[in-house]
Parts: sequence; structure tokens; C-alpha cells
Amino acid sequence: MQPLLTRGAEGLEIRWPDGIVGTFPYIWLRDTDPAGFHPQTGERAFDLTSIPLDITPQSVKIDADNLLLTWTDLDTQSRFDLDWIKANRPGQTRPDPADLTPTPWRGDLGAGGVPRRTANGIMSGGRELADWLDVTKRYGLSIVEGLADNKDAGIAIARRIGHLRETNFGLTFEVMSKPNPNNLAYTSDALPLHTDLTNQELPPGYQFLHFLSNEAEGGGSTFCDGVAVGNDLKAQDPEAFEILSTVTIPFRFQDSDTDIRGRKSVITLDARGDVSEICFNAHLADILDLAPGTMNAFYRAYRRFMEMTRDPAYRIALRLSAGEMVVFDNRRVLHGREAFDPSTGFRHLHGCYVDRGEWDSRLRVLRRA
Amino acid sequence: MQPLLTRGAEGLEIRWPDGIVGTFPYIWLRDTDPAGFHPQTGERAFDLTSIPLDITPQSVKIDADNLLLTWTDLDTQSRFDLDWIKANRPGQTRPDPADLTPTPWRGDLGAGGVPRRTANGIMSGGRELADWLDVTKRYGLSIVEGLADNKDAGIAIARRIGHLRETNFGLTFEVMSKPNPNNLAYTSDALPLHTDLTNQELPPGYQFLHFLSNEAEGGGSTFCDGVAVGNDLKAQDPEAFEILSTVTIPFRFQDSDTDIRGRKSVITLDARGDVSEICFNAHLADILDLAPGTMNAFYRAYRRFMEMTRDPAYRIALRLSAGEMVVFDNRRVLHGREAFDPSTGFRHLHGCYVDRGEWDSRLRVLRRA
Repeated sequence: MQPLLTRGAEGLEIRWPDGIVGTFPYIWLRDTDPAGFHPQTGERAFDLTSIPLDITPQSVKIDADNLLLTWTDLDTQSRFDLDWIKANRPGQTRPDPADLTPTPWRGDLGAGGVPRRTANGIMSGGRELADWLDVTKRYGLSIVEGLADNKDAGIAIARRIGHLRETNFGLTFEVMSKPNPNNLAYTSDALPLHTDLTNQELPPGYQFLHFLSNEAEGGGSTFCDGVAVGNDLKAQDPEAFEILSTVTIPFRFQDSDTDIRGRKSVITLDARGDVSEICFNAHLADILDLAPGTMNAFYRAYRRFMEMTRDPAYRIALRLSAGEMVVFDNRRVLHGREAFDPSTGFRHLHGCYVDRGEWDSRLRVLRRA
Repeated sequence: MQPLLTRGAEGLEIRWPDGIVGTFPYIWLRDTDPAGFHPQTGERAFDLTSIPLDITPQSVKIDADNLLLTWTDLDTQSRFDLDWIKANRPGQTRPDPADLTPTPWRGDLGAGGVPRRTANGIMSGGRELADWLDVTKRYGLSIVEGLADNKDAGIAIARRIGHLRETNFGLTFEVMSKPNPNNLAYTSDALPLHTDLTNQELPPGYQFLHFLSNEAEGGGSTFCDGVAVGNDLKAQDPEAFEILSTVTIPFRFQDSDTDIRGRKSVITLDARGDVSEICFNAHLADILDLAPGTMNAFYRAYRRFMEMTRDPAYRIALRLSAGEMVVFDNRRVLHGREAFDPSTGFRHLHGCYVDRGEWDSRLRVLRRA
């Protein structure tokens, strides 16, 4: 049985035998003609201004598995594969292999519940790489083990995905206590849970922290899933959630060579209304400049969020060893560390970032049919 | 005459002799205590969870040029400089040397109206660098002349600002016709006005195109100020402006190694409601997936915008020579080129990007008092 064609007010209607109905505006059909895309680059080459806005086809018909249309401005027919046009009917979300549902986690995940994969498996590419990208995106966190004892080993894994995200701290960075630090990460102080570089217009996506040594007393790594905290805050304190997802606050980092400022809400929602991003960094939060009438309500919500991140109900602590690397979505999972005593041993991490765009791109390419 | 202090419902009120009144929530005063910031890094070290939300000072008083407060949780007084606290009173926008008012321009700017500076002046740094950053940001466009005849010359100017923005096309890129192009830029076809990499979550900011040679017939460079088009569209066709600034459309680039997808509105507004960003790239626009009821209205608005960008009333054409570099805000100024005949001579550009964050940071550092 063939699909049924009707000319409707909004465009061509196609009713498939299974009951699915698509409405295809004529301008969309003309603009989407497969012949209008560059044969080598796949980019759209058709010029929309070359046709009138109210264009309608002279004829429409179905021939075997194709929809055929003729137009006054074209010598040849537009030919659409019927299955393709059904899958791409307007208003239909197209499938995306990188659109994975997050697995929110809380303190009861424990250190043992964090996904673990081997460096060798990931570097082998293919299914093992795709599986690691998938599980790390779902949890926002994973541990890679079996890294060689050199700084290149962690970077090589990051580059297996795509290019690194450079920042004002460099293309890669080292975390150890150093004299004249320009950042708390370079001290031996405790670092409460936070996300990095919230002062940037686009804070870096995935963070890679390769432990080259971790012998000092203290210095454990703490993590908290911002999606879990956000979801629970929404259920328990909708007013606080509303404020944190709509009010933007100023962030700033400055040293002798840089002064990078940005405004962000603590919680960002995606088009579905789900928590898609957390920007939380008390150290980089600039002097709050909200109107006096908003300030007290903001502080209440902000402090509540802060308390939740430190609650053992949400927090996990990991003791990572040399040769291990923790990888996490810096725009979702907050990280911190306990204070350590630099006189008891060396603690040396080597890190870098890869943005979400490269992560998702690699996952899509690996999962191509 | 001293400022007058009053304890109000929202916090401490300070009335200055010049009539300015600030309301300072107590939690803000405690959180903003200058002693709560790390002495070396300048970051906030104070832990907000260490105090109750409804904290109030035991005493407040003015002593010469300072506001002094005592708290139950602190042995020492909080001391604020009165001028500082006046400038930073809640609800007050803090000055930002990088917050420059755009100078919208139209076709009548002409090639001769584009700001020009010399490579030597910019490389000397200081005032000349700051002046160039300023004027290029205001116009979204400038020409740098007197570059040495090698690829490093343009990159050196970009790096004078900050690190480069790497993309899937590399840290730098070359624009010339090449076999098996994965992008229309690498053909000799005309390129209608567009902004680059609209498929990225954060499209690159400033683009640098250094002309190493430009001898082929054709291949002129075209530019159009998206802020001017946006402003005029808002005045002339508010419905189209509304659609383009609220409806997001899918963008996508894919080749053998990448598949980068994102959704963007064509026009993005800042918190003031001003046009802050344009994402317009017909080649990277994926098959539109809007609901049928929105599609026709979107196409009308989208085609209108496209027509305006090509209208000589908005467009300028430049013929750049070897040794010149055009620098423009890729998120504001659309660029394109006329078709050229590769058999008539060589056309070779070398390019890179520096994001808006680095641009603004350099401007702030150079303009520090």
C-alpha cells in the first residue's frame, strides 16, 4: 500500500499506511532537495533566495520507493527516498548517538561504583573506545587505569577523542603545590567541590587528571554529581532551583596576564528542561552584584546548593594511585580535594581538557552504521 | 559629612552625602569581607557554609574612610573602604573596559571606511595594541597591513592577544582550492555571506585571514555587519526578528573523522536585549526539523535575513593584497567571497581564530590603571 498524498494549507501531507502523517511545507521540500547539496562536501549549496517563498510544486507523485516533485525553476525532478523523508519529516527529532540519558548518582555509588576501564582498551579504539565514551558520558565520571608513568600517557588518551581545549592555564597543566600560586589548585589547601573555569564563556568540558604520584598524606579526591543535586533540589526546593537556574552571577579570574570575566547561572537547563550544566565555583565567583531584593533569596538558594554538594549523601571520595586517571564532565560533575601535607610525600597530577563537542563527535563517528 | 547608616529589612542601608543610597544585605557583607580572599590568588577563600544565613553584624560604624563591622564568628573587624563599597553596592554594574558599544556599519562604510592599522604598531603592544583591539571590537572588523610574507606573521599578531582557538580544521588553516574538499571554503566557488562553524557549541570568535597571495581573477572578500542587519530587521520586521532570535535550528558538519552538531538561533541577544551574536551559515544548516506550523514562518524570516545580508545597502567588498590581513568578529560580522578562477593565479590565505574571551581579557589587562 502506497502513502497517500494531499495538498494541505501548510504544505504537502503524506499519510503512511502505518498511520504516521507528515506535513511538508513546500519551501522545505524545495530547500531540502537532495540535489541541492554539494556532491563532495555534503554541505547545502542551494540558494534559498533563488526561489519565491510561496513556491509550490507543479506535480507530486510516488514512484516505487520515491517521492517525485517537479518545479518551475528546475529542469529535473526532486527525488526523495520515502523512508528518508518519513524519518526526516518536520517536527521529528532525528536520532543522535551522542544523546545519552544521564545516570545520576549519589554518595551511595561509592568509590567502587565508578566505571573503570583500561588505558590499553581505550587506546585500541573502536568498540572499547566507544564504550568508554558512552559510560563516562552517562555517569559524567570514570577512572582509567594502567597508564604509563609519563605525562604523555594521559594526553594520548585525550587526543584519541579529539584536540585539547586550551585555556589561560595552557594546553595542559600540572597540579602540585608551588610557590606564588595564582590559583588555589596550586596550593596544598583543601578544595571544596567546584567546577573549573566558570569565568569562561564556555567552561571546559571533560577534564582529564592523570595521577603521576599521590604519596602525600591527605589529598583525597572528592566528586559530586551536579545532575543528581539539581534534580533533588528541584523536587525539594523548587524556589531555590528556579533562582539558581535563572539568575546569573559574575565570575572572574585575574592574574598578571589575564582578566577573564563571565556571567553564568549556577544551573543551566537544556531545551527539555533537564539539568544540562552546573557552574559552581565559590573561588571564582566575583563580588555578587545582584539587586538588594534578589540578593538574600539568591544567597539562600546558593548556600543550600553548596551544602548539598558537601553532604555525604551526594559526595564520593576516591584515593587514586599513580598510573590512574580520573576523567569527568567538568560542566556536570563537581570535583574537589582534601587538604594534604606536602612534607609527607609528592602529589603530582597532569591534566587537560577536551570539550563536549569533540567527545560527542567521536562517539557519533564510532557509532556510524 | 559622613554617610548615614541604617539597619533596614534587606540589610544595612548606607546613604552618602551625594544622595546615593546602597542596600547591603548582611550575608553579602560577611561573604564579601576583604579578609576572606586568598592573599596570593585573590580568589574567595571564605566558606559561606561556616556562617548562618541570617547573620547580622554585632556593630557597624564608620571610622574615617572605612566601614567597620563586628561579627560573632570573627575575632577581627571586617573593614571596607567606603569608596570601594559605594562603587560595589548591590545592583550596581561594575565598569568593564571590554564592554564597548558596537559601531554598527552598513554598505556606505565602503572599503575605505574599514579601520586599518599596521602590523608593527600592533606588535609593539601597549597603547597601539589596545587601540586596535578597541576599534576592531567596535566595528567587528579591521585590516592589518604590512605583514611579512610568511605564515607566522599573521599568527604572531593573533598570539599577541592570547592562545589560538583550535577547531576540527586545526589550530590554523589554509584557504585555497584543493582536491577532494571537505568544505566549500576549499573550492573556488563563491561563498555567500556566512559566519563560520555555527555547528559548534561556541562558534569561534575573532577570525584572522592573512593574504599570502591574491592574484586569481575574482575572489573578492565580502563582509556584512550582523548587528546592523539585526537592528534594522527588528525595526522593520519585528515578527521576523522575534522568530530568528528565539527559534533554534540544527547545524552540522561531518566528514570522515568528525560529526559535530549544534542548535543555535540565527540571532542571539544579550541581557540588555541587544544583538550580541549572529549564527548564519546556510551550508552548515542541517535539514530543518521545526514543527510544520513554525516552518513557513521561519523560512520567511530566515530568507528575509539572508536577502538583507546580500543587499548592497549592507555589504562591503574588499580586495585584499598579499601582506594584508583582515580580522573580524566571526560571531558578528558575516564574511563571504566572490568566485574565482584558479587558473588565472594563486589565491592563498592563512587563518586562525582567537575567542572573544581572550580578546576581552587582553583589552582589560592593557587598560589596567
